[in-house]
Amino acid sequence: MLNIQLKGTDSFTQIKIEKGTNNMSTQSEMKAVMQKYLDAFNAQDADAVLALYAENATVEDPVGSPPLQGKEAIGAFYQKVIPMGSKLKLAAPIRGSHSNSAAMAFVVESAMDGHTVNINVIDVMTFDESGKITSMRAYWGKEDCNIL
Amino acid sequence: MLNIQLKGTDSFTQIKIEKGTNNMSTQSEMKAVMQKYLDAFNAQDADAVLALYAENATVEDPVGSPPLQGKEAIGAFYQKVIPMGSKLKLAAPIRGSHSNSAAMAFVVESAMDGHTVNINVIDVMTFDESGKITSMRAYWGKEDCNIL
Repeated sequence: MLNIQLKGTDSFTQIKIEKGTNNMSTQSEMKAVMQKYLDAFNAQDADAVLALYAENATVEDPVGSPPLQGKEAIGAFYQKVIPMGSKLKLAAPIRGSHSNSAAMAFVVESAMDGHTVNINVIDVMTFDESGKITSMRAYWGKEDCNIL
Repeated sequence: MLNIQLKGTDSFTQIKIEKGTNNMSTQSEMKAVMQKYLDAFNAQDADAVLALYAENATVEDPVGSPPLQGKEAIGAFYQKVIPMGSKLKLAAPIRGSHSNSAAMAFVVESAMDGHTVNINVIDVMTFDESGKITSMRAYWGKEDCNIL
């Protein structure tokens, strides 16, 4: 939230950026990878999604389930869910941080048995210095699923 | 994201809820606390905001800054930011999880020097078994600040 003081038109220069690591991905690079993630998922290109991940990445989807570790397990996950044909639609602009993580709110829209099923999700991702995803955690619960 | 199979009208009974802890807050309880957080913040009631936190809670706002620990430090933080009069406006419905955490995307809308300043934020919170907030992490970066 808000812990900055804004004064005048060049006020953003007063925002202190505290970097957790050197050579980390920039905010815009992280957001670009997250947009690529959405686009590749929606194109049903599981290989392109997997290529965004670092070798030893983890995926916890949903948060509270046992995390998947490594590209083999993560690849198997996307090979299973992507062919279901769901579309990921951003609900709001992707957020960065003051470190190597970013977050986005989106809706998973699926057609199932003649119904549209929407799941409200927020993904939080961390990135390595080369811009690869090192972790993904997906916040959604049973009550975030809606049949339209 | 989507790792469930939906079949028929009673399909949600097939969603497996994996609980990380017993007696944890329910999804709806966590979401209600987050809504109270927004309402108390917008009412400029720092005491009511602080009352939502557990004794040894942590606040990392923004993610990447040194976390505040304990109600004294957290109270001082809200006593500083709440009088600035910003309003928190949900950008999408609050998300739960399959554990003791939930997340919400919102916009911090502030009036400063005759301008409206919007900051896009996602807060991730965890909760104890009594529904108190045990941690808050706020994802926003310099590039998530917009002067309108």
